[in-house]
Amino acid sequence: MSDDLKRGLEGVLVAESELSYIDGDAGKLGYCGYPIEDLAREACYEEVVYLLWHDGLPDADELASFKSWMAGVRSLDDEVLSVIRDLAAADEVPMAALRTIVSTLSAYDEDADHEDVTDLDANLRMACRITAKIPTALAAFERYRNSDEPIEPREDLDHAANFLYMLNGEEPDEVLAETFDMALVLHADHGLNASTFSAMVTASTLADLHSAVTSAVGTLSGSLHGGANANVMRMLKEVDESDADPTTWVENALEAGRRVPGFGHRVYNVKDPRAKILGEKSKALAEAAGDTRWYDYSVAIEEYIGEEKGLAPNVDFYSASTYYQMGIPIDIYTPIFAMSRVAGWIAHVLEQYEDNRLIRPRARYVGPKDASFPPLEDR
Amino acid sequence: MSDDLKRGLEGVLVAESELSYIDGDAGKLGYCGYPIEDLAREACYEEVVYLLWHDGLPDADELASFKSWMAGVRSLDDEVLSVIRDLAAADEVPMAALRTIVSTLSAYDEDADHEDVTDLDANLRMACRITAKIPTALAAFERYRNSDEPIEPREDLDHAANFLYMLNGEEPDEVLAETFDMALVLHADHGLNASTFSAMVTASTLADLHSAVTSAVGTLSGSLHGGANANVMRMLKEVDESDADPTTWVENALEAGRRVPGFGHRVYNVKDPRAKILGEKSKALAEAAGDTRWYDYSVAIEEYIGEEKGLAPNVDFYSASTYYQMGIPIDIYTPIFAMSRVAGWIAHVLEQYEDNRLIRPRARYVGPKDASFPPLEDR
Repeated sequence: MSDDLKRGLEGVLVAESELSYIDGDAGKLGYCGYPIEDLAREACYEEVVYLLWHDGLPDADELASFKSWMAGVRSLDDEVLSVIRDLAAADEVPMAALRTIVSTLSAYDEDADHEDVTDLDANLRMACRITAKIPTALAAFERYRNSDEPIEPREDLDHAANFLYMLNGEEPDEVLAETFDMALVLHADHGLNASTFSAMVTASTLADLHSAVTSAVGTLSGSLHGGANANVMRMLKEVDESDADPTTWVENALEAGRRVPGFGHRVYNVKDPRAKILGEKSKALAEAAGDTRWYDYSVAIEEYIGEEKGLAPNVDFYSASTYYQMGIPIDIYTPIFAMSRVAGWIAHVLEQYEDNRLIRPRARYVGPKDASFPPLEDR
Repeated sequence: MSDDLKRGLEGVLVAESELSYIDGDAGKLGYCGYPIEDLAREACYEEVVYLLWHDGLPDADELASFKSWMAGVRSLDDEVLSVIRDLAAADEVPMAALRTIVSTLSAYDEDADHEDVTDLDANLRMACRITAKIPTALAAFERYRNSDEPIEPREDLDHAANFLYMLNGEEPDEVLAETFDMALVLHADHGLNASTFSAMVTASTLADLHSAVTSAVGTLSGSLHGGANANVMRMLKEVDESDADPTTWVENALEAGRRVPGFGHRVYNVKDPRAKILGEKSKALAEAAGDTRWYDYSVAIEEYIGEEKGLAPNVDFYSASTYYQMGIPIDIYTPIFAMSRVAGWIAHVLEQYEDNRLIRPRARYVGPKDASFPPLEDR
């Protein structure tokens, strides 16, 4: 046993994977060999899900049949809708609600009690249902807590467009649908981030797919992970409400010891390639709407933090203003991250099941040893 | 970055901890410095929970007030009971039900939306509620699925006795209550086992306590972890139903390529000290009941596997026959493991929050790079 303490497991290689390739120095990311820029421009979310789960791109027939399969299982059982209504009534935090909903899905999934948790076919069926139902659940939760009734999914819309339709009650225009689809593509996988890793740790005991995805949702909820995109937007709103210009605002915030969200990443030393793509989208949305302030604030903050701290923005930094300009409520940014990343979580869990080994590190014990146990009356 | 692949993170030190000391070569285990044998004999479960959460034994007043605090928060909200009834009606697997229930608890916990997830006082209050409510939830689930109404917890009974009371509808005798309490003490913590580690990974993003515990429940459910105790009992029942003597049975099972559950452990090279203690309890229960077959089968299998495979039994091996002789249904053995281990999960999460670092290892990418993206029509 090595005596080195690796508290964050930085640089520790825990798996081999064919899913995402990350070059943190060059700012490159690819899924299964395809550069993220190509995927963002040319592939739809369902295509990327297929790629990650089958380790290869679908042909036209395969894609059509996969899309129709996913679209066909979007609806929620009444019992699940009732759980969502109760969580909304209890004013549950959206990510906590999503964690409970994903965990609940297993009770109504015909494959969930499958004898062999590593069975690939059963897992792909469950994977499809989980991925298809998360947007429906999230839109229903959002509507219930605004005292609206949920909107049934429409099978004729793509995954991204259908979510926006269920959320807002109207079909999105092409720009919104494409932008949202691209955001889902960009978030679909990213190596062994903490949520993906927690799904693998859970799966490594031969726990089932629902357990693994539930772990991942909980892990993503933390402010050091998926919670960052919402915090970026809250910061931009603060900037907007202050009278200071954004550079002065961020200068003051840093002086006051505040942490500026959306910067730095364990694996990138340069600008996150996803931030580049989303930054362009954010700019395009701003210009189309004739109101560029959220984009302008973001650019000013990016420049200041880059000069002062040498840190580059990560994916959360520009997803914030992109989602905001699309009219998405701030506290569901992180659930939307989950809605996309579930594809990657499941892909890594399938890799884990394929050649499983229990993941069990150790702690260095630093407490006392062999203390004698004092009777209660002598303490 | 080291290029060594550590697929199971064997021997990798990921934390410092003052909680459990394990010497796998000597077969020694202690919590916060106190040998497990002393704790099993002299401490009750609530005392061990206090020890793990406060890193010190309570005096008589502290213990009394801690026990009464925990006993006072055992009841479930009606909404949670309704979730449990629905899960039982859907015939959900007990560990999946427990995962959903623990996740649901946050919606009705007044501290769950606390601004600072690392706030120790808020976490100790939530910790107390989660730990106190799990037995109530599990007993209610078990009763609902047998078409019985749940039994309200009784504040005048200890944690262990109250669970057996809620499960069976009658107060347990002293031997049963003490045996069950001791089983809970023995399972309360065990270093960075996979479920504890998954709770830490989840907490490391600054996700909240409910997320961390929910991850742990899911992780424990796997057959390579908490699921093993139930599988041991299923094996003993198979032995009983066969006409073969247990040694012949296990010999045939091994020849047929079956995995015999309850043996071997990543961290013990000798007999797990908890298996020793539980083995004695199993024997005592057997002799008191005048039916020693489950104990006898266990001993015969232990001897055979020891000689043939050089493997020693782990904690699951003797908890199986102990629980069975106490009349506990086989498929809630693993939830009972969770009912106890929740103390350790929470203790490790509190340690993680105290000096947090995001846990994010890496994968070695072994797929293709820079593939050119083919248009759909060319595939």
